[in-house]
Amino acid sequence: MEKLRKVGFANLTSLEDTLELVFSYIKINPIEEIEVNTVLNRFLATNITSELDIPPFDRSAMDGYAIKAEDSFNASLSNPKKIQLSGKIEIGEFSNLNLNNGEGIRISTGAPIPKGADTVIKIEDTEIENDVISLYISLPPGKNVSKKGEDIKKGTQVLTEGVELNAEQIALLTSLGLDKVKVRAKPRVSIFSSGDELIEPGTKLKPGKIYNSNTPMISALVTLYGGEVVKGETVKDDKDIIKNKLIEATEDSDIIIFTGGTSVGTKDFLPEIVHESGIVLIHGVAQRPGAPILIGILNNTLIFCLPGTPVAAYVSFLKITGIVIRKMLGCLILDPRHEVIAKISKDVPVSSLGYLHYLRVIIEKTQNELIAKPVKLKGSGVISSLTFSDGIVEIPPYREGLKKGDLVKVKLFPQ
Amino acid sequence: MEKLRKVGFANLTSLEDTLELVFSYIKINPIEEIEVNTVLNRFLATNITSELDIPPFDRSAMDGYAIKAEDSFNASLSNPKKIQLSGKIEIGEFSNLNLNNGEGIRISTGAPIPKGADTVIKIEDTEIENDVISLYISLPPGKNVSKKGEDIKKGTQVLTEGVELNAEQIALLTSLGLDKVKVRAKPRVSIFSSGDELIEPGTKLKPGKIYNSNTPMISALVTLYGGEVVKGETVKDDKDIIKNKLIEATEDSDIIIFTGGTSVGTKDFLPEIVHESGIVLIHGVAQRPGAPILIGILNNTLIFCLPGTPVAAYVSFLKITGIVIRKMLGCLILDPRHEVIAKISKDVPVSSLGYLHYLRVIIEKTQNELIAKPVKLKGSGVISSLTFSDGIVEIPPYREGLKKGDLVKVKLFPQ
Repeated sequence: MEKLRKVGFANLTSLEDTLELVFSYIKINPIEEIEVNTVLNRFLATNITSELDIPPFDRSAMDGYAIKAEDSFNASLSNPKKIQLSGKIEIGEFSNLNLNNGEGIRISTGAPIPKGADTVIKIEDTEIENDVISLYISLPPGKNVSKKGEDIKKGTQVLTEGVELNAEQIALLTSLGLDKVKVRAKPRVSIFSSGDELIEPGTKLKPGKIYNSNTPMISALVTLYGGEVVKGETVKDDKDIIKNKLIEATEDSDIIIFTGGTSVGTKDFLPEIVHESGIVLIHGVAQRPGAPILIGILNNTLIFCLPGTPVAAYVSFLKITGIVIRKMLGCLILDPRHEVIAKISKDVPVSSLGYLHYLRVIIEKTQNELIAKPVKLKGSGVISSLTFSDGIVEIPPYREGLKKGDLVKVKLFPQ
Repeated sequence: MEKLRKVGFANLTSLEDTLELVFSYIKINPIEEIEVNTVLNRFLATNITSELDIPPFDRSAMDGYAIKAEDSFNASLSNPKKIQLSGKIEIGEFSNLNLNNGEGIRISTGAPIPKGADTVIKIEDTEIENDVISLYISLPPGKNVSKKGEDIKKGTQVLTEGVELNAEQIALLTSLGLDKVKVRAKPRVSIFSSGDELIEPGTKLKPGKIYNSNTPMISALVTLYGGEVVKGETVKDDKDIIKNKLIEATEDSDIIIFTGGTSVGTKDFLPEIVHESGIVLIHGVAQRPGAPILIGILNNTLIFCLPGTPVAAYVSFLKITGIVIRKMLGCLILDPRHEVIAKISKDVPVSSLGYLHYLRVIIEKTQNELIAKPVKLKGSGVISSLTFSDGIVEIPPYREGLKKGDLVKVKLFPQ
C-alpha cells in the first residue's frame, strides 16, 4: 500500500511549523499616517504616550459651587452653613477668580476649579437667596473634583503598537488631541479561483458547473482581517494563464490567495508553477479540513493556494492566511476571534491522529454554561455547515477525540 | 431635602421601558438591492430560499475512478479486482458517458458522476496498467460521492431576514448564484457635540478647554453598529445655533446623536429645544453611568442627547442608541456584543438601588475559566477605563451588588 500512497501530501507540516516558517519571510508593513476619523479597525504602528495630563486641569465633576471644604464642615439640613456667592465659572472658561474663606463660586460640570477652592458642593445640596448660599451637607476636601492627570498622567504610555483601533481607542487618541495617527498600511491581497467547473454568480447555472463562492468569501475574510482586496478573479484552469496572472499579481500584491487547484487532480498546476517560478515553502499542512494547502513565494509575494472546497478554504484562511495578514499589520493579537468555553454535548472520535481537527459547533446557552453541539456534516464542501454553526473547536493532533462533557474552547466566527 | 432634589432627573425610566417606548416610534429602514461583493456586515432584508440543489448534481468528492461499488466488493491489496478504463470526466464537464459493469471512468474531484456509477475509488487505492485498473479496496455504494442536494435541498430556507452578512453567509449566497442581495438601507446618523469647553483634536489646547473625543468615538460606534455617519460636528453652546443645526439635520438623518448638554447645568438647552420643537420621549434613564439622557423626536427624526462624559456616552450608545440602529436595520440580534461567562474576582457593592449598573472589567484567562476583574476608576469621564478593560458586567437594578466568585456575564466591547 505504501507505494500507492506516495502521490499526494506525503509530508504534512504541522500548523505551528507552517506559521513559524512563513513568519520568517514576513516584513511588517510600512507605516502610513491617516486622519483619526478613518482609523477604525486599523492597527497602530507606534506606541502612544500622552503629552497631556487628562483632565488637563482640576475640574468640577458636578454643577454646583466651588468652595473650601472646611466651610461645609458640620453642615446639615437642619443646620446649614452659609457662604457668600463671589462669582461664576462656566465650562470652557479659564478664570482668574480667587476663592476666599466664606465664599462660593458657581461652577458648572467640567469647568476649572478656581484657585483657593478644593471642593464642589452639588447644586441640589444648597439653596441660594440674595447671593447667600446655604450648604446643607458637609463635604471632605476634594469631593466632586476631578484632579488634573487623574485619568492619564502626562508621559504615560496609553496605547501599544499593534493594537486594533476601536471606538475606545479612538476616544482616547482624540482626547489626547491627536487628529492624525500612524497605522500600518493594509496588506494588499489578490484573490484568484481556478476551476473549469466554476461560473460566476448572476449567470445561469450549466450542467456540471457550480457557482464560484470562494472569491467573495475570501474577499470578505481579507477585509475582516484588515487586508485590502486588490482584485478577485476566476481564472481558467490553464497553466500559462494561471502563471501569467500570478506573476502579474505579484507586482501590486503583498499576498496572493488562490483557491482550488492544489490536490493531485489532473489539472493542478499550482505546485508546478510555484516550484518553477518561485519557492515552495509548505506543501500540505496537518489539519482537517484544509490539508492540501500550498504556500510559497513568487517575486517576494507570499502565495497561499488554499483548497477549493469552501469549508477547507475558510478554515485555512482563519488559521493561516488571516494570521499572516495580521502579522504583516504588526498586530498584537494574531487571531481576532473571540473564544468561549463550552461543554461538548457528545463524544467526538477522531478518525486520524496527527492532524489538527476543526470541529464546527453550534453553541447553546443554558443558565450558567454554554453547550457546544457538533454540527453533523459530510465533507468540507458543505457551506451550510458554516452558516448553521457558531464557531470551531480545535482537537489537537495527538488527542484521540473529545468525550461528552469535556470543556472545550470554541473560537467564534470572525465578524 | 425633597424640595432640593426636585431639579435634575426626578423620574428615571428603566432601560426596558425606554427601549419599548422608543421602539414604538421606529420604522424598519427601506430595502436596497446591492452587489454581493459589497454586502459584508450589512443586514439581510428578506428570507433566502435556495432555488438550487447544492451540489447541483451528484459529484465526485475525490480524484479517482467512478465505478459500480459491486465491482470492488471483496477487493484487497493481495486480491485486487480488475476493471477496464472506459473514459474520463474532468471537473466542469458534463459527460454523457455511461458506465457498465466491469468499467471505470477516470474522474476528478468535483466532476459529475456518470450514469451507471455509484461510487468513486480514490486514485491512491488503485493502480492502472494498459487501461486495466486494479482496485485494492472494497467500497460500499455511495462512497466518495456527494449527492445532489446533500448540502442544501432546492426550496429550503437557508438564511433569515435580519441576519448580519459575514463571510459564511456571503459564501452561501454566492453558492446559490446570487450576485445581488436585498439589504436594509443604513440608518443615517448625524452626530453633534456641544460645549464651549470643547476644542478639536489637532489644534493647540487652551486653558479650561478639553479635546472633543465624543464625536469621533460615537462615529466609530455608529459605523460598527451598521449606521452611516452623515456628519459629525461640534457646535457652540448657543440655543439658537443648536436648534437650527438640529432642525437642519432632521432633513437627511434617521437619527441625531448629541453629546453633552443634558444635565441641569446653566447652558443645557437640549431639553428646551426638544420640548419646544418636538416630543420628549424620555428624560433620564435608570442606569449608571448614563442616567442623564434625553430621547425625543424632532420632525420624525429620533434624537438622542447622551451625557457628555465619554464613558457615559459610550455605554448609553451600546445600550440604547446602538440597539435602536440595529432595530432600524431589522436585525435579529440587537446587541452585537459577544458574551462570555466569568467569575468575578471580588465583592462589588452597589451604591444606589434602582439603577442598572455597568461595571467595566478586565478578563483574565486561567486554565478552564475566565476571571472578571473590576477596573478601578473614578468618574465616568475616565476614557482610559475603557481602553484598559475588556467588557462590561451589568448589575440589575434591584440586586445589591456582586459577591466574589459569582458567575457573571461579561459583554465584550464591540469590534
